[in-house]
Amino acid sequence: MASDIAVGVDFGGTKVLASVVDIKTGKILGSAKKRTDQNDNPKELGERLFGTIDEALKSAGLSKKQQITGIGVGIAGQVDSENGVLLGAPNLSQATVNLPLAEMLKKRYDVPATLLNDVQIAAIGESAFGAGKDMDNFLCVFVGTGIGGAFVQNGDLVRGASGSAGEIGHLVIDANGRLCGCGGRGHLEAYASRTAMTLAIIGELKRGRSSILTKLAPDLKDDAPGGTALRSGILAKAIDEKDDLCIDAVRDAAYYLGLGLASAINLLNPPRIILGGGVIESVSMLFDLASKHARQEALATPGKAVEIVRAELGDNSGVVGAAITGARAT
Amino acid sequence: MASDIAVGVDFGGTKVLASVVDIKTGKILGSAKKRTDQNDNPKELGERLFGTIDEALKSAGLSKKQQITGIGVGIAGQVDSENGVLLGAPNLSQATVNLPLAEMLKKRYDVPATLLNDVQIAAIGESAFGAGKDMDNFLCVFVGTGIGGAFVQNGDLVRGASGSAGEIGHLVIDANGRLCGCGGRGHLEAYASRTAMTLAIIGELKRGRSSILTKLAPDLKDDAPGGTALRSGILAKAIDEKDDLCIDAVRDAAYYLGLGLASAINLLNPPRIILGGGVIESVSMLFDLASKHARQEALATPGKAVEIVRAELGDNSGVVGAAITGARAT
Repeated sequence: MASDIAVGVDFGGTKVLASVVDIKTGKILGSAKKRTDQNDNPKELGERLFGTIDEALKSAGLSKKQQITGIGVGIAGQVDSENGVLLGAPNLSQATVNLPLAEMLKKRYDVPATLLNDVQIAAIGESAFGAGKDMDNFLCVFVGTGIGGAFVQNGDLVRGASGSAGEIGHLVIDANGRLCGCGGRGHLEAYASRTAMTLAIIGELKRGRSSILTKLAPDLKDDAPGGTALRSGILAKAIDEKDDLCIDAVRDAAYYLGLGLASAINLLNPPRIILGGGVIESVSMLFDLASKHARQEALATPGKAVEIVRAELGDNSGVVGAAITGARAT
Repeated sequence: MASDIAVGVDFGGTKVLASVVDIKTGKILGSAKKRTDQNDNPKELGERLFGTIDEALKSAGLSKKQQITGIGVGIAGQVDSENGVLLGAPNLSQATVNLPLAEMLKKRYDVPATLLNDVQIAAIGESAFGAGKDMDNFLCVFVGTGIGGAFVQNGDLVRGASGSAGEIGHLVIDANGRLCGCGGRGHLEAYASRTAMTLAIIGELKRGRSSILTKLAPDLKDDAPGGTALRSGILAKAIDEKDDLCIDAVRDAAYYLGLGLASAINLLNPPRIILGGGVIESVSMLFDLASKHARQEALATPGKAVEIVRAELGDNSGVVGAAITGARAT
């Protein structure tokens, strides 16, 4: 009998989280995490992945190659999910391209393995045990370092012609606007991601604007152009302290996030949008303003039809979803 | 035995076209058309519809209530397709709201009848006999008075939570940009529809810019703000004559249409986009530039994966698709 226990891994831009999951209940039996390192070469990236899985198995009281039915990995990069190959992941390892991760996992753990992107696994997790569990159709939007999305139609994740459906962060919302990390212009992600907010805040600090951030995050001003340095928790704290600069930055981001959501509402007419990701979880003002603005900007009919809710599984949506795909792998 | 003959009606902003269609082959057995009149009251709108259907039946050599299996209507307005009710259609009749058109058709012709919007029926027509006939997944985009869209997923039209999925004309592509007819700002339709092009051209004519249009369409400058007066054929002719103003207007529209298509490509990752509508059919420069720009602006992976093709059924996509839905009606 196949066991109901699978391993799910969420390999993101800041950390790798691996969990052993009971996929019948969504319960997490053991977890481990490691920091991500952009300097990893392909071998190191693989070892970081294996090491985290090994620790998660240990923390669940399982040994390697025992009692698990499969391994699913979601990764913050471009994947060829059909063949289980990581095509590239600039935020995780500049040096890694075309790494056959699913194959490597199969060899090491002797169980089936799958590879998806990090947003897709989170959507599957929310679909099974979170804010999408009673819905056949919904759109997930996760705001973090970037902005990712995934939509579920008739109970299935829509993958698209080449597995990249759901890239809501790359909706053009401001023709000829800000440069996006992808090279495009005016994309949602360049206005409403945590990275975008951080860059706007750093710019203002450099212009001499006062902010409590000079105390809460004294090194922020020196951050390289990456703009990933401002943690969501610190942003939330500054807003609790009524810091003008941070309130302005979040209000701006929420305005544009609302426009992007309105576009998605008009095009897809979803019954529900699930908003998640670190900055949405930490900063309730972003959720509140973006939801309100999305409804205002959307056409009346689909705007009334959509519920906008928070993701429910937090950090665990990814590992739970990944474990589910791992258990289904062949 | 149910016959394979059904009536399809495409009730658009400028004309009503009704056809008797062999839904097994897509062949049109007879057609009729009438102009649309915005001054219609609900009764007149109904009579315009009935009159066109009666003429189409006659032209196919059929009598009323005989030999047809159903009637499908696609209409340029907001519809409640579940109940066959026209909620409102400002471009067809300011006075008409909540008209139970399907019920009225059933009563008069004694066959099942359905109501969808005009873009949805065109997508169904292209799906069955046109540019989508070999595809389970595609996005249709029709450029005319407005810009409408519809997408087909796993062979079925995606309707969304309240039947309005596909409204690509109301993607926000320019935050804080031009006012759209819907009241929103910066929507694709306000930049790339025939109406948008016409308004831009009229503005330039009023500023004194010279153009062959002063000969081809001498009354254009006096057009009311509706901006629907410039026919696609005249625009095409002016471009053939290398009219600078019209070339600029189409180039601008194609630029923005490309941005909107890129957004849709990034979000949906469709294997194919079918572009149709009067102005796409008449003005090949619009199709060519918009397709090229869409690929350039889209993310690399979905941009490479998408084919962009022309609709194949022209004016008939709507009536053929409508007839198919009529034949399926119960």
